[in-house]
Amino acid sequence: MTEQEQQPHADPEVQTRIRASFDRQGLMGHLGARLDHIGPGRVHIVLPTRSEVTQQHGYVHAGATSAIADSAGGYAALTLFPADSEVLTVEYKINLIAPAAGDHLEAVGTVLRAGRTLTICRLEVHGVQGAEHALVATGQQTLIRIDAAAAR
Amino acid sequence: MTEQEQQPHADPEVQTRIRASFDRQGLMGHLGARLDHIGPGRVHIVLPTRSEVTQQHGYVHAGATSAIADSAGGYAALTLFPADSEVLTVEYKINLIAPAAGDHLEAVGTVLRAGRTLTICRLEVHGVQGAEHALVATGQQTLIRIDAAAAR
Amino acid sequence: MTEQEQQPHADPEVQTRIRASFDRQGLMGHLGARLDHIGPGRVHIVLPTRSEVTQQHGYVHAGATSAIADSAGGYAALTLFPADSEVLTVEYKINLIAPAAGDHLEAVGTVLRAGRTLTICRLEVHGVQGAEHALVATGQQTLIRIDAAAAR
Amino acid sequence: MTEQEQQPHADPEVQTRIRASFDRQGLMGHLGARLDHIGPGRVHIVLPTRSEVTQQHGYVHAGATSAIADSAGGYAALTLFPADSEVLTVEYKINLIAPAAGDHLEAVGTVLRAGRTLTICRLEVHGVQGAEHALVATGQQTLIRIDAAAAR
Repeated sequence: MTEQEQQPHADPEVQTRIRASFDRQGLMGHLGARLDHIGPGRVHIVLPTRSEVTQQHGYVHAGATSAIADSAGGYAALTLFPADSEVLTVEYKINLIAPAAGDHLEAVGTVLRAGRTLTICRLEVHGVQGAEHALVATGQQTLIRIDAAAAR
Repeated sequence: MTEQEQQPHADPEVQTRIRASFDRQGLMGHLGARLDHIGPGRVHIVLPTRSEVTQQHGYVHAGATSAIADSAGGYAALTLFPADSEVLTVEYKINLIAPAAGDHLEAVGTVLRAGRTLTICRLEVHGVQGAEHALVATGQQTLIRIDAAAAR
Repeated sequence: MTEQEQQPHADPEVQTRIRASFDRQGLMGHLGARLDHIGPGRVHIVLPTRSEVTQQHGYVHAGATSAIADSAGGYAALTLFPADSEVLTVEYKINLIAPAAGDHLEAVGTVLRAGRTLTICRLEVHGVQGAEHALVATGQQTLIRIDAAAAR
Repeated sequence: MTEQEQQPHADPEVQTRIRASFDRQGLMGHLGARLDHIGPGRVHIVLPTRSEVTQQHGYVHAGATSAIADSAGGYAALTLFPADSEVLTVEYKINLIAPAAGDHLEAVGTVLRAGRTLTICRLEVHGVQGAEHALVATGQQTLIRIDAAAAR
């Protein structure tokens, strides 16, 4: 929290645009995920852990972990582009490196390189229990930028 | 359907074990996914498309597409191991190659190589609209086998 | 061999263009790799095993295995595009699933989907010893098509 | 250089062990690569650019870029394990994000998490031209630890 308050925020217009897009992602609402921080080239998404997002051992399912990581990376990219742009995930790779547990998960998407066509993001997901953060997944994502008209 | 009926089924004991594990995956139930076919080294999972699983353009979210692909691969691996085994996803990579749409998605996980410790699966997801099948995602997954006691 | 002779060949013009490009890849010559088959959307590259391509245990190094896989995928994509196109590797993921050994390795790149901008290939590498083929690596690759003028 | 001198070095015994293993990698010598820094959980490998490592446009081939990245990650992992351990690459994923050019490439492998069985590394490759560094590739690697006797 404290750490995040020190991180730069994206322009209000950008934040508004990204929150509106996030609200259109039915899956994020259904999972109970929420946008936690929108910085330039960096977005945090939080997912409270509950039985609706688990795998068979009670940890958060790799698919839910990946879903918030993927959205965090996509919105991190979107912060860097004009209002008439959209980004789509081309592919991503993710390592699940520890059981995903805690009060909530926090996914952080960070742009490593933003290109005219392709953007590369780092994806990290932490399990958060009180003040404890544990890295539970790390990945890398490729996105393609398209103009919004083509996306409809 | 016809095609699947011609595919071999796993032993009833294996099917029972996998259905029980699937039912413990809170995420699969929450997304509305269901096991469609359990063959030796090959599992199909179906996800009806509805607004709860979408991204911002109304297509199925990469996270939901990945979630059923990841589970299909994990259970495909599990069909090949003794009853006291569990598998965990080490990592996967997935390309989203077309907008994920249709009446439902069908994820197919197929074991490429089952090892004592590590198993590699191919992951494919189709968008199905009536008789039309379109490949919407393709990936590759690494799993690790552990004994069930260690997983608890 | 017999199998390959039954596989379709690309147009002679395409084969000539791809052989010329391959000959400009200094790495392929330096490793001792050669083009073995050029079909539409499918290219085979052979790498004789010798000490110059090994890792510390005497097997073929993952880097050499990957190099021929990457080139096979790139040329498989190139067979499908007009003469003024080039393709560049965006990314790939590869699993090394068995020790890479034998008289030679054979990498096969197969186009899964060719798009206007992005193309996805499957990459497979076999270790070949006489009549024995063993799958030693399997991967997935994303390529971007650019016009040749821009690539210079 | 200056930066690297400030980075911690691994124990002399570890450095000796890793240099001996590197010298057994026929591919590294054949490509002209050399170990540049061996720190705990972090290894740098340098590859001078020359025609023997190029692709068709004169840039360093993705396979050569990947080869040094893969070795850097593998040796970074090895620095953290006892002398009777070996590591093998399970899989890696790499994005080629800019044309690989410069006087030489420098690959840096960094351990993100070292486990009893599996270790995850970040892979980064820079193109270096004088004082200029440009990120040309970034990836993620999974390694498996085995005891040395089993590797022979």
